[in-house]
Amino acid sequence: MVKAEVITIGDEILFGQITDTNTQWIGTELTQIGIRVVRKTSVGDNESDILSALAEAEARADLILITGGLGPTKDDITKKTLCKYFDTELIINEDALAFITDFFVKRGREMTQLNRQQAAIPANAEYIKNAWGTAPATWIAHQGTIFVSMPGVPFEMKNLMTKRILPKLQAFFETPVIYHKIIKTVGIGESFLAEKIEDWEDALPPHIKLAYLPHFGQVRLRLTATGSDLPTLQAQAQAQVDAVLPLIENGVFGFDTDELETVIGDLLKVRNQSVVTAESCTGGYVSHLITKVPGSSAYFFGGIVAYSYEMKMAELDVKQATLTNFGAVSEETIREMAEGAKTRFGSTYAVATSGIAGPDGGTPDKPVGTVWIGCAGPNGTVTRKLTLTNFRETNIQLTATYALNMLRKAIIGQPANV
Amino acid sequence: MVKAEVITIGDEILFGQITDTNTQWIGTELTQIGIRVVRKTSVGDNESDILSALAEAEARADLILITGGLGPTKDDITKKTLCKYFDTELIINEDALAFITDFFVKRGREMTQLNRQQAAIPANAEYIKNAWGTAPATWIAHQGTIFVSMPGVPFEMKNLMTKRILPKLQAFFETPVIYHKIIKTVGIGESFLAEKIEDWEDALPPHIKLAYLPHFGQVRLRLTATGSDLPTLQAQAQAQVDAVLPLIENGVFGFDTDELETVIGDLLKVRNQSVVTAESCTGGYVSHLITKVPGSSAYFFGGIVAYSYEMKMAELDVKQATLTNFGAVSEETIREMAEGAKTRFGSTYAVATSGIAGPDGGTPDKPVGTVWIGCAGPNGTVTRKLTLTNFRETNIQLTATYALNMLRKAIIGQPANV
Repeated sequence: MVKAEVITIGDEILFGQITDTNTQWIGTELTQIGIRVVRKTSVGDNESDILSALAEAEARADLILITGGLGPTKDDITKKTLCKYFDTELIINEDALAFITDFFVKRGREMTQLNRQQAAIPANAEYIKNAWGTAPATWIAHQGTIFVSMPGVPFEMKNLMTKRILPKLQAFFETPVIYHKIIKTVGIGESFLAEKIEDWEDALPPHIKLAYLPHFGQVRLRLTATGSDLPTLQAQAQAQVDAVLPLIENGVFGFDTDELETVIGDLLKVRNQSVVTAESCTGGYVSHLITKVPGSSAYFFGGIVAYSYEMKMAELDVKQATLTNFGAVSEETIREMAEGAKTRFGSTYAVATSGIAGPDGGTPDKPVGTVWIGCAGPNGTVTRKLTLTNFRETNIQLTATYALNMLRKAIIGQPANV
Repeated sequence: MVKAEVITIGDEILFGQITDTNTQWIGTELTQIGIRVVRKTSVGDNESDILSALAEAEARADLILITGGLGPTKDDITKKTLCKYFDTELIINEDALAFITDFFVKRGREMTQLNRQQAAIPANAEYIKNAWGTAPATWIAHQGTIFVSMPGVPFEMKNLMTKRILPKLQAFFETPVIYHKIIKTVGIGESFLAEKIEDWEDALPPHIKLAYLPHFGQVRLRLTATGSDLPTLQAQAQAQVDAVLPLIENGVFGFDTDELETVIGDLLKVRNQSVVTAESCTGGYVSHLITKVPGSSAYFFGGIVAYSYEMKMAELDVKQATLTNFGAVSEETIREMAEGAKTRFGSTYAVATSGIAGPDGGTPDKPVGTVWIGCAGPNGTVTRKLTLTNFRETNIQLTATYALNMLRKAIIGQPANV
């Protein structure tokens, strides 16, 4: 099996000053073409650390993907360091220079000397055009190992990988077959899930591995099957899925790349139904999740983020007496929010959230983490109280997850309290 | 200087099936106490890979922080592998067992054999209580290197680090002083920024390093000063900041942990002003950013996510004729959205977005990435057209950034088009 390592270059990642989303994406893409990522390494903008990371990776891996350190500025030293590693020098690549010049001309922007220097690549490297930016990628074959260097800007890197590098890797390497099947669950804790499926897990054949991936109220069960024939692996994995589903049925909302919001979108589209949101403590996060999905305008009319009492009354028709008597974080209010939104906007469903996200605002009766969610639909309104954490962002995420799951259950006619 | 390495254990990270946010957070925290993260490594749930990562890190680092692989399930092998590495065995820690037992009793949940086994730690390890979960942390001193193993669940790990491990590290190591000062800019490209400040950058003293950290329309400039005396470093960094600010003033919105949404919150609070949102293409993301900030209810009344024409008309008082004649993605519509929201909710400001986020919905006149943003305030309404990318999530993020910056400039009385 082709072994890959991913090396990320930049002090900013070590110091925690940016979020590295690139290596996750690269891991997914390589896995899908049957290349196994065996290690990810981040080093700083420091020549000796980069050199040692390159040498260690070359000793272990068939493929080394390097991101970052290709910017026009002085702290970016990846190209220079690759030259040192391979004992070669930077030369201006004419194709790269023509592309960069054109890039600036088209945008009516002046090209600086720093930009011109971005057309320089190691003399032993093959130029790979970066259609979305001015730092080219390069491909270097060295003693049986392939080194690919790419810019760290996520959309440039992703476009480069998708259009240029992944096809090139598939052409170059003979890759074995890995098949992943992911079962997505929500609302069941990891330990309880493990107890429920213990016998099944123990009986898995050795070429099929299971992993538990918990994330904000969800647990993904990943089956990884390794072999030589994709249809065989798919059939074997599907047989295992069929065997485990009856044990955890109530918690399963989808498979593979399904997300709660994409599953909901598909359910609504098929039924020609619609949804609106009425959010307080989630502050727009539920509608953000729904609208991240391409084409969501087909079933999402919009939403109200009603942070103030006034907006809950004016926009969602919550009664003043309800707020006064029960407070904004109450079953009575969440019911009126959901029903108010549904009636007002004429949607099939309305999903509502109201709670104390924290860190302040808690009371003895309603401590931080107290949240009500509700969903109004053709079969009436369901509500549920959640007792979450002391962390604002965690509470926003968990509330959104449970609210979307409540909506999903309302659409398919399952009780909300499972 | 104390050198630290962070090792993340889990196939799910290599395969790209979860986002690793832990190591970013750990990097930030260690940096702040003057411990330098020199490398981050991710390996899979595989004994030999974990063993080699431990051995390599031990050869280089004074401190090794390990996260993940401590769950109750069979695919989690960190503890077993640490035992193998140190040639020792797992033993039940009585304090850990008492805590875990109590954890389950308090929650009225049954304790499984898998949970009980979480109280087992390597015989050479010191037990560190994880107040938020059932997988304890451990501290192992081995031939001058400290190994700390922690669960991968982010809120458990963060609580453990903050309450237990960071204080223990500060007590154990004599740490040199590193001071970071970050200047946050928005709306100026990295190359242009670099040109503007080139002379200043070239004149930086050797103990102060500069890095450019671009992220969705923003570039952070990070100064890292290393020395032995914090007040001296702070003064030196501040002198550099004072020298560079006049060169880039229009683009600077804050420093250090400032975010556009926190800066806006502070500006509004001081002025006793308020804001509402009127979002189309950002789908609630702008209000999510605003409400992520603790205490935002003091100045944020709420927002409308108006995806449909009907909601734009009903909730934001956009005229049907405007939508028909100019379309939803137009200067005329964005102006009516912003002004409609401001008037309706009686806020000081209203910020609005409307655009074609993609991947579908583009036309020759208005391709994917065409976005209008607007802000209505006491001094009138400003609007701006953006030409962004082909990527839905990037467009949502960039639009939110530029819309918040437009709001910020309106509040402080700067022109919007800078």
